[in-house]
Amino acid sequence: MSDKFSPQEIDTVYRLIAQRRDIRHFLPGAIDENVLLRLFTAAHQAPSVGLMQPWRFIRILNADVRHAIFNIVDEERSNTALELGERGSEFLRLKVEGIRECGELIVVTLMDGRDPYVFGRRTLPEMDIASVACAIQNMWLASRAEGLGMGWVSLFDPERLARLLSIPPGGKPIAIICLGHVEQFYPKPMLELEGWERQRNLNDLVFVDHWGSGEAVASSSHQKLGEDTPL
Amino acid sequence: MSDKFSPQEIDTVYRLIAQRRDIRHFLPGAIDENVLLRLFTAAHQAPSVGLMQPWRFIRILNADVRHAIFNIVDEERSNTALELGERGSEFLRLKVEGIRECGELIVVTLMDGRDPYVFGRRTLPEMDIASVACAIQNMWLASRAEGLGMGWVSLFDPERLARLLSIPPGGKPIAIICLGHVEQFYPKPMLELEGWERQRNLNDLVFVDHWGSGEAVASSSHQKLGEDTPL
Repeated sequence: MSDKFSPQEIDTVYRLIAQRRDIRHFLPGAIDENVLLRLFTAAHQAPSVGLMQPWRFIRILNADVRHAIFNIVDEERSNTALELGERGSEFLRLKVEGIRECGELIVVTLMDGRDPYVFGRRTLPEMDIASVACAIQNMWLASRAEGLGMGWVSLFDPERLARLLSIPPGGKPIAIICLGHVEQFYPKPMLELEGWERQRNLNDLVFVDHWGSGEAVASSSHQKLGEDTPL
Repeated sequence: MSDKFSPQEIDTVYRLIAQRRDIRHFLPGAIDENVLLRLFTAAHQAPSVGLMQPWRFIRILNADVRHAIFNIVDEERSNTALELGERGSEFLRLKVEGIRECGELIVVTLMDGRDPYVFGRRTLPEMDIASVACAIQNMWLASRAEGLGMGWVSLFDPERLARLLSIPPGGKPIAIICLGHVEQFYPKPMLELEGWERQRNLNDLVFVDHWGSGEAVASSSHQKLGEDTPL
């Protein structure tokens, strides 16, 4: 297996990263088990703090459990709309999940028994969540490459979901993953297309030596960082 | 730009995911500014909860600031060794960062003013960290494709680092990223090669319908999930 990536392969990687989307619109149909195995393997190859590998995956195959998960999400959707105040009704018009339609539903949870893992976590215990997020991002990119849509739903009460799935004390669900076939991938993030939020300008996010200073990337590159950058 | 990925391109993606490593050994030499711009762009194309884009990047170009960061990490390294007790001396023998040697040092921080972003965060405020981790994973994979090594250091007191870099209240650094040229990519995760931790078996991490149940992947695929899986 080669150790290097060709210019063409590098282009493929950037195209993949650019075309990955958070998907909420699915077509019916199960996911091939071999594809699923490749996606789980990709997730499991993610980096983790101190190599603790804190990710656990629960495939939801039972229709009643899937329905119960939908109800938990739907309730949190209402609660979020209330908290959003004046943007609440705008929020309720958005499609925020595809739990009932997607071919495969997966809950990703933090493992129990994490306290002894202090390597890289003594001052930043949340690094376990960061590791699981890296695993999910691997899965997301691999899904996109396979032509499958994936969405990460975090609209739920983690304690209720933990009880539903018998997650032991210390464990915690952080993602409901919808995976499935799609008619298309959104040309831009759906929340940008829907006008919920705008894409920020990269130049405003990169500083030098301390927060808030400018000119962080070579001036020769500045034009590529403008509003027209195809993100 | 094509919407699909060929079988060969899909293989490239899986090879990339499999060959990405957390790097602590670097060769000297700066990173090309255009490459750096591509890496930041890849990070900025990550998904984020409610499209809040909570990532901020601080490039460390000043040698004194870099040295001060090294000192903060070195102190936390000692504190971690103490807390690890009997594994403390084993921990101290590991190379856990390449801050002084890497060509480019970047601190990644959560933005300030996150409280109003409740979409997907009302019950799970830590989703902002998950979003930043996805951005870092994008950067990690893009770096590997470019033939550059990258390491994520989380051994630091976030408050001290925030003060050093004038990060405003509400912001929080979660990663010191070492980026640089390398002689080689480790054939396996360094902490596995060094005997710190073992790779878990994927079959033990995937459940069905509730925590802890087995047979989560099709039995026809089981042989691929055994100890010999090249992770």
